[in-house]
Amino acid sequence: MDINAVIASYRAKINRHLESFLANKVEEAARISPYVRDLVANAKEYTLRGGKRLRPIFFIYGYKCLSAGNEEAIIEAAISIELMQSYLLIHDDIMDEDELRRGKPTFHALYKEICEREFGHAKSDRFGENMAIITGDLLESYGEEVLASADFDAQYVRKALCKYLQVVRNVGYGQILDVLSERRGHITTDDVLRIHKLKTASYTIEGPLQIGAILGGAEEEDLDVMRDYGIPLGIAFQIQDDILGMFGDKNKIGKPVGSDIREGKKTLLILYALEHSNADERRFIQKKLGNRLTEDEMQMIRDIVIRTGSLDYSIGLVNANIEKAKRAMENSKFRTEAKEFLIKICDFIARREY
Amino acid sequence: MDINAVIASYRAKINRHLESFLANKVEEAARISPYVRDLVANAKEYTLRGGKRLRPIFFIYGYKCLSAGNEEAIIEAAISIELMQSYLLIHDDIMDEDELRRGKPTFHALYKEICEREFGHAKSDRFGENMAIITGDLLESYGEEVLASADFDAQYVRKALCKYLQVVRNVGYGQILDVLSERRGHITTDDVLRIHKLKTASYTIEGPLQIGAILGGAEEEDLDVMRDYGIPLGIAFQIQDDILGMFGDKNKIGKPVGSDIREGKKTLLILYALEHSNADERRFIQKKLGNRLTEDEMQMIRDIVIRTGSLDYSIGLVNANIEKAKRAMENSKFRTEAKEFLIKICDFIARREY
Repeated sequence: MDINAVIASYRAKINRHLESFLANKVEEAARISPYVRDLVANAKEYTLRGGKRLRPIFFIYGYKCLSAGNEEAIIEAAISIELMQSYLLIHDDIMDEDELRRGKPTFHALYKEICEREFGHAKSDRFGENMAIITGDLLESYGEEVLASADFDAQYVRKALCKYLQVVRNVGYGQILDVLSERRGHITTDDVLRIHKLKTASYTIEGPLQIGAILGGAEEEDLDVMRDYGIPLGIAFQIQDDILGMFGDKNKIGKPVGSDIREGKKTLLILYALEHSNADERRFIQKKLGNRLTEDEMQMIRDIVIRTGSLDYSIGLVNANIEKAKRAMENSKFRTEAKEFLIKICDFIARREY
Repeated sequence: MDINAVIASYRAKINRHLESFLANKVEEAARISPYVRDLVANAKEYTLRGGKRLRPIFFIYGYKCLSAGNEEAIIEAAISIELMQSYLLIHDDIMDEDELRRGKPTFHALYKEICEREFGHAKSDRFGENMAIITGDLLESYGEEVLASADFDAQYVRKALCKYLQVVRNVGYGQILDVLSERRGHITTDDVLRIHKLKTASYTIEGPLQIGAILGGAEEEDLDVMRDYGIPLGIAFQIQDDILGMFGDKNKIGKPVGSDIREGKKTLLILYALEHSNADERRFIQKKLGNRLTEDEMQMIRDIVIRTGSLDYSIGLVNANIEKAKRAMENSKFRTEAKEFLIKICDFIARREY
């Protein structure tokens, strides 16, 4: 199995379904007013900008763990999780005051620009954020609509929706802690790992796998295996994300390197470095958290993260969690093709550069 | 039938179900962290602050139009629409920068205060809005969870959810036009009526009625009757709201009189007055739109609204729409008790003072 080819092939199919679903929504909006049509068209562009589509791929493979049935219907249902992702990103970008997403303006930044062009500069921030709040809300409802009308047994759909909504809730709870962590003085590595578990692990891997599996008729014990695989893999995914955010290539990751630090995010990488650095280093990092960095300052922080062993600690955690995930999948009774894919994708995630 | 007694009795039952559902959510949140528990407890307090509970009552009576079945289950399902309402209000308050809701701080204002008390004044606006965005998102998912797990046939539930999500979308589309209308120079009475149709009419009356009816096994033609009844009644409801917002009693409506003008909202009342006033009056209203008003200035605007015939025009529209709604219901084949209630509630809505 060439995992890159499998991923690329599903990604293309998912993008086609997303494209077609959102084109219908643009038409729906056009029946309301040209302005609403433009906004939904912008939401479509935002959603189709790129993205690895790993979440819908996990959704599809959750289903394939149990069933070889309806491939078209499961791809269509899987775009629900990508619409959720799009909604979460739009709202997250407001909260983080980010201006770039996948190399282009975030949604609120786009509508701030539009406001300034069409209505002037007064309260253009407010206008941009308002349009982005509404657009996120719309995308949340689109995602649920896709799932509610999925071509599967109504009992399975109902159960899948309950799981989907549980994921939305967990992400919300995690996000509360995340916003809070930027304000609080004392945050421990345990706190950060809990946020990762609620936010990323639940909606990146465990959630999509389980929702797809439910549509394939999964029982409780199947969902437990997906949890034992999905949670560690999700944590590995998030830590890898933090590493890329500091050591990655801006052009590959689609956002400025160091934006976590500018936002005051206490990632595991930063926390461990703070806990193991000397007084000067600690003072330097504390001063920079929440502020813009020059390239030199960024390099100094990278050096501290390396010197304190924080980078090695994070890489070690990634590897340990990847092993844990693989073991859970190897011991499962799922269908062979899906199992093989889900084991191989662990290394793909650990080695990714974007 | 004593309609006030019926409303009061259902309101108490709805509040009990809401109280109990949200108490469970507070417990769920407590298992995550004390801070998340506090936030969900605040969302519970916000939701239970008051409110007429007309939406869930319409939901229940939509069901009762077709079925006399499961009273407890339909009341439980009906709280979904009140949770949607709570989510929409929290996000609306952010967009409108309102500070009071039902006589107490809006959600973002509450979390701004909490931030200032716990973490200082820096970016306390941002903190408050972030917590309010997340809380709205959580309440949206709570509402859908209630419906997804409602104790009805899975096919009906799936169809009810699709309708519920359609309502969320329509409100979103209406809200886009609403935010836009505060910026645009040229807004016509037609534009305003379209926003009312999308925002209020769809989610205040038509939507709740139809969702409840679907759970009772409604066919397409039943939903059409509910549309013909719900849309005019919803428009009447909104215009009455605008009238109360300018001529009502602050203590009864739970927000400052004139807040629509401060927010620059071009209500029908204001638009008609603008279209029929002399140059001095027009200039005065234009200058005041989007600004705080003294009590004297508010009185001057009221005088213009009366002199131009705008108040009479709005009252006329309320009455005409009420008659239209009643006729649609009288011609229907729904169950007698429900029909009688839905006809009587039209006058209740036209005469309400809060």
